[in-house]
Order: sequence, then structure tokens, then C-alpha cells
Amino acid sequence: MAKLRGNLLVGQSGGPTPVINASLAGVLKEAKEMPEIEKIYGMKNGIEGALNKEVYDLTQEPDDLVDKLLYTPASALGSCRHKLTKDEEYEQLLELFKANNIRYFVYIGGNDSMDTCYKISKLARERNYEMMVNGVPKTIDNDLPITDHCPGFGSAARFVALSTVESGRDLEAMKTFDDVAIFEIMGRHAGWLTAASALGKRCEEDAPHLIYLPERIFDEEKFLKDVKAVHDKLGYVYVAVSEGIRDKNGEFIGAKDAAVDAFGHKAISLSDGPGAYLAKLIKEKLGIKARVNRPGTIQRALASLASKADVEEAFRAGQAAVRYFAQGISDVMVTLVRADGKDYKIEMGMAPLENVANVENFVPDEFINAEGNFVTEKFFEYCLPLIGEPIPEYARLVGKPIKLK
Amino acid sequence: MAKLRGNLLVGQSGGPTPVINASLAGVLKEAKEMPEIEKIYGMKNGIEGALNKEVYDLTQEPDDLVDKLLYTPASALGSCRHKLTKDEEYEQLLELFKANNIRYFVYIGGNDSMDTCYKISKLARERNYEMMVNGVPKTIDNDLPITDHCPGFGSAARFVALSTVESGRDLEAMKTFDDVAIFEIMGRHAGWLTAASALGKRCEEDAPHLIYLPERIFDEEKFLKDVKAVHDKLGYVYVAVSEGIRDKNGEFIGAKDAAVDAFGHKAISLSDGPGAYLAKLIKEKLGIKARVNRPGTIQRALASLASKADVEEAFRAGQAAVRYFAQGISDVMVTLVRADGKDYKIEMGMAPLENVANVENFVPDEFINAEGNFVTEKFFEYCLPLIGEPIPEYARLVGKPIKLK
Repeated sequence: MAKLRGNLLVGQSGGPTPVINASLAGVLKEAKEMPEIEKIYGMKNGIEGALNKEVYDLTQEPDDLVDKLLYTPASALGSCRHKLTKDEEYEQLLELFKANNIRYFVYIGGNDSMDTCYKISKLARERNYEMMVNGVPKTIDNDLPITDHCPGFGSAARFVALSTVESGRDLEAMKTFDDVAIFEIMGRHAGWLTAASALGKRCEEDAPHLIYLPERIFDEEKFLKDVKAVHDKLGYVYVAVSEGIRDKNGEFIGAKDAAVDAFGHKAISLSDGPGAYLAKLIKEKLGIKARVNRPGTIQRALASLASKADVEEAFRAGQAAVRYFAQGISDVMVTLVRADGKDYKIEMGMAPLENVANVENFVPDEFINAEGNFVTEKFFEYCLPLIGEPIPEYARLVGKPIKLK
Repeated sequence: MAKLRGNLLVGQSGGPTPVINASLAGVLKEAKEMPEIEKIYGMKNGIEGALNKEVYDLTQEPDDLVDKLLYTPASALGSCRHKLTKDEEYEQLLELFKANNIRYFVYIGGNDSMDTCYKISKLARERNYEMMVNGVPKTIDNDLPITDHCPGFGSAARFVALSTVESGRDLEAMKTFDDVAIFEIMGRHAGWLTAASALGKRCEEDAPHLIYLPERIFDEEKFLKDVKAVHDKLGYVYVAVSEGIRDKNGEFIGAKDAAVDAFGHKAISLSDGPGAYLAKLIKEKLGIKARVNRPGTIQRALASLASKADVEEAFRAGQAAVRYFAQGISDVMVTLVRADGKDYKIEMGMAPLENVANVENFVPDEFINAEGNFVTEKFFEYCLPLIGEPIPEYARLVGKPIKLK
């Protein structure tokens, strides 16, 4: 494809991550250096901004923006969850591209966003409008296919891993008072982030002791048995559960607790998750106390604990999307490709947008133990490099308790 | 008081903090250097360990324990929530002290623990048993009197401040999809930690927009009015609420949501807080969506985000408790004293145990705004130095959105 002179339109979409701005920084840095690109426009709130013709002129921003974006959480351009469905929306977009000489389009996002990106690339091709379109993967859910992992996941995984092992120490210290802690972790369909709760565990006492992913049917009886077994042995139990766990009928466990709320309504809302229900279940059936840790959006926003590897890869992925334009490559999502060999090394690759749009990548069987209540050693090997600096080895007393006179 | 040769007994009590082990490290380091101290015993799970005669012989631990404890979250010795009430417990303790030549007693904890510490110092004096007893303050709640602040608070405050402003960016980015985020923060009686949510805020857009502390009666009508006003203006609202907010009848707001749970019980449990209730209230009355962030014990355990100032002060407070023994000073709690002058500087002081036992220190009026829904500039001045390194200044686009053709 010939490289036309024109403007670039970039957007961020879906739930933010601690490093989605690092990808924007990569796009910006590279686009500024590409001679064919004149203006760089940032869509205000993703594709909604394009539909409303509202953009930021990023060419006018101070030069230090690129550096600042590297550690700024959430989406500096604003995000959205808009799904393109109506014919008139496509017409609107095509008009916008034409009227403003948009020849380069970059969308940074997850599954739904790659679908949007694919639809736009298809639209341009079908209507013979010359525009290059590339996607940059982003999601703490790590559920995009083909790429080794998704920028954003490593940082959220780092937060989840550190929070689990550190608040696990809290529970262990309080075991004469508390019994169970339930950590409710994001991920409606894929359990990658919940699986990452294991990464700080070095010994049996360390949290977590049990992990439940949406990839397995959640069985309450088995769950209670698991909890009781750990409690009998250690005196405390730290459980990591994905918000998306479901029973054999496909019902979200979180929806059960919504059965009767203070207003008498039955409705799953953003406030409902399985944690509160399971805490009550444990109290009811096992007679022991359970707390719920539910950091919510903090787990996808806490840039202060971002993985350095993740920040760097997110930046490079943003750069790659524009470099591909320079190389004449369009209609792809940038992928991260893990190099062979002992040392962790990531190279930038690509996958056709049509192969990634709406495809979900679940935690594979080899990463889940046979009982379906923990992860395997193979998962550790896959995931540990993504969270950046190693989890510290915290102090444990070497000596056993002694009996005084 | 003469300095007797003998053994030291140290314990950690109450809810852990990210730096309570740093205080233990300070005690250990100093006690090892004090010639009169022979063995250093650590109570297993606080005073419960003393009652059960179960201790760790810390004299036998590897030398690197002190360094490792500086960044290890929660209580390495184990903690408890045991309140001394029975006469026979005092007899048991006195016997233990005598039988094992315990001449030095250090207890690291909050309000209840200082009460325990005070009772033990009184017991020794009344029964003419020569033993020196000092307390080391510890609590993320920051509610001990006399001391400028409590070790542990600065680190929890740092986590709360960073989480608020960073997940606030997430909400702001998602404002075309989400409306309200409610951050439910620890503190049943005192609102210090919830107040700290403000510390990363630099402009009107930054979170939080509203803060509700237990120091003020919570009025639902006023709350809804506040939320609506911010939402009308910005399109999103980030609310920080203390778990301990109560209505004018003294009822916990969190207890309301417990009214009808899935099991048909009315009971406040460790899982109940005001967040879920308020989210439903907002949906019901204002017709807008609200999410709840409720990190639970993560906020008091996340050593990975500890304040460096806090770690250092916690260590020095532990050292001071033992140094006071060497100086013949007993029956005091170590206090942090802020030096006069522009630069933040903390010196170690002391307060008689009887003056701190069971006294709670609330957020003063001068730190709360007139409307009772935010903190004042004076609170920023007081609190900012405690959280260590400054909160980063995240990127914001300088330009306003423009309209394309």
C-alpha cells in the first residue's frame, strides 16, 4: 500500500490499564517522526469521539507528554465501551476520515476494540478509501489471541500477586482471630489475572491456598471441602476467585448474592461479585469468618505498582503499530512474540485483525491443576517474567515456637 | 529503676500494618546490643502466646532477620485481638515473667494493645515484680493520642492516596460508561485513612471529589445532593467513604445493606461495609451506576507501597522502646514528635502508658471542611510528609478537544 501524506487518528478503548498510556506514548513518538504523518489527532473517548468529531490535537501538546504518559494510569484520551453496529455510524466515520484526510488509524484496546478496529479497516477497504489501520493490544484480562500476552496484564498481575502474598501474611498473622480471606479478582470470562495471584507464593503457608477460575465450573460443595481442608491444616485460608466464576447452570456466583438486596431487587450490578456470597456461604456452612478483599478498578489502575517490563512492552507495541505503517503494513494487530531460549525476550509481531476480532484466549488446561483449584508450575514459568522485578522474599522466622517454663 | 539482667519479651498485637515488622526490627537490633538483655523472646500471636507460654527465641534467628523485617508486611510473630480481663490471666502472666526471668516487656500495637501494655506494667508494679514495660505505637487508623501520628498510618495512607488518584483517572477515562466510584476505606471510628484519599488530588478533575468520615454524621439526603452536584458538573464522581460512617441514630451505614442477605439474616459481618449500600442507593435515587472499590486488608498489608518515612520511623520507634530501658525509662509508649520548623523532622518522645491506654484520637475539626464532605488544606500540610515520596504528577493533556470537519 502506498504511503499517503495525511493525518493519524488514535484512540484508546475499553477498561483502562496502568500502561495503556505507554502505548499511546509509543504511537505519538513514532508518528511524530514519520514524515508522511501531518497531524496526530487523539479521539476523545475512543470511537465515540470519532462519531462526535471530537478529538485532541496531539501535535500541539508539549514535548514532555510522551515521557509523562509512560507512568500515567488510565486512558489520557478517555475511553469508551461503544460497539459499532449501525450503518449510519460507518457512514459518519467514513465522512470524517475523508473530510479530515485521516490516512492512518490506530486503536488501542481489547477484544471489542479489535472488533471495532477490524470493522473500520474493512470499511475503508470496501469503500476504497485509502487508510492504514492497525491495532495495539491492551487488556488486563490477557484474553486476546495469538499474542504471547497483552500489555496491561503484567502490571495488573503484579498488583494482584503482591497484594495476595502481602495480605496473605496479614491473614496468617491474624489467624487466631480471622479464618478466611477471599480476594475477588477481575475477569468475567478468562481467569488469567486470578491465576496471577499465585506468583508470590513460595511455601505452603503463603497465600493463596486456593484459586478458582472461570475456566472451570464452580462447585460449592467442592469449594467448601477445599476451604475446610486448608483450614484444618493451617488454621487460615486465602482464596483467590475470579469475579466471573459460574455454577454448572452457567449462573454467575456473584448473581446469587444479588438475590435479595436492601431494596428488594434481584439484579447483578457493578457492585456484585462472588466474594460476599462466598463469605456468607463459608460462615453459614463451616461456621468460620471470612473477609472479602475487592479492590475493583484499583487493580487495573495502580500505575504505582506497574511492571517495568509491561510499561516497556506497551510502549514498543504502540511504536510498532506506526512503524508497520512506515513499512506498508496495515490491518494487523501488533502482537508480542516470546523469543525462544532461556532468557525472557519479547519481539514485536503481528496478526491480521480479522483473526483477533472477538476471539477470546482462555487459560489453557496445562496451566490449571487437575483439581481445578490452583495453577501449575508451567503457569509460573509463563507468567513470572511479565510482572517485572521479582516478588521480594519476605522474612519468615527460621525457629519453631518454644515452650517457656 | 535499676537495670536487671534478664530476658526481653516482645509482642505484636492488633491488625497488622506494612511496617509493624520494622518496629520489631528496631526492638531486635537495639535489644541485641543491650548488655543486660540475655534472651529475646517473641510472643507467638501477641499476649495469647504469653498466656500459652509459646514464644520464638529471636536470639537464635539469623542476623539478616532485622534487614528482612524492614520490608516484610504483617506481623512476623503473629498477632491477636485478645483483651486481658480475667484475674487468672494476670496470675499466669506474672508466673511466666518470674519463671523465665522476663525483665523487659515491649508491646507493639494500637489502642487495645496499649491498654494491655498498661495493665501489664501496672501488674508488675503492684506485685513488686521488677520489670520494665514500654509500648510501641502501631496502627493504620492513626488514632492513638499524644503521638504526632502512628507508625503504619503513613504507608496505608500512601496506598489509599495513590489508589484514589490513579483509579480516579480510570473513572474519568470511563465517564461515558461509568458514573460513580465508591472507595470504601478502613477506619471504624476515626477517619484519618479515609482523609488520606485526598493527598494525590491536584485539580478539580482528580479524585476524590467527596470524602465522608466517621467524625461527621452521615446524612443520605445530603450525600445524594453532593453526588448529583459533582456528577452534573464533571460527569463522574469519585467518593471516599470510611467503613465506619453512621447515621444520626448511630447506626453503621454498612449495617443497612446487611438487612436482608442471601440467607435472610440481619447481621453485620466482616463483609459488610457502606459501599455496596451506597452504590445501590445512588442507582435507586439518582439512576446512575456506581462501582465499589474495597481493597480490605490489602490497604493495611501492601508493604510494596510502604512509605519510606514510615518504615524508618517505625524502626526508630522500636529502637526507642529499648533505648528507654537502657536509660531507666519504663511504663511509656514511644511517641513521634514533629520538630518545629519548615522541614519535616521526627524525633522520638514518650507518653505515660496510662495516658494513652484506650484513648482515641479523632480527625480534628480544623482538618474537615465546613460541609463535612472533604478535608482542608491544613490536613494536607499535616499528612503529606507522612506518605514519603511525593505522589507523581500524572499527564493531563494541555489542549481542549477540538471539533473536526
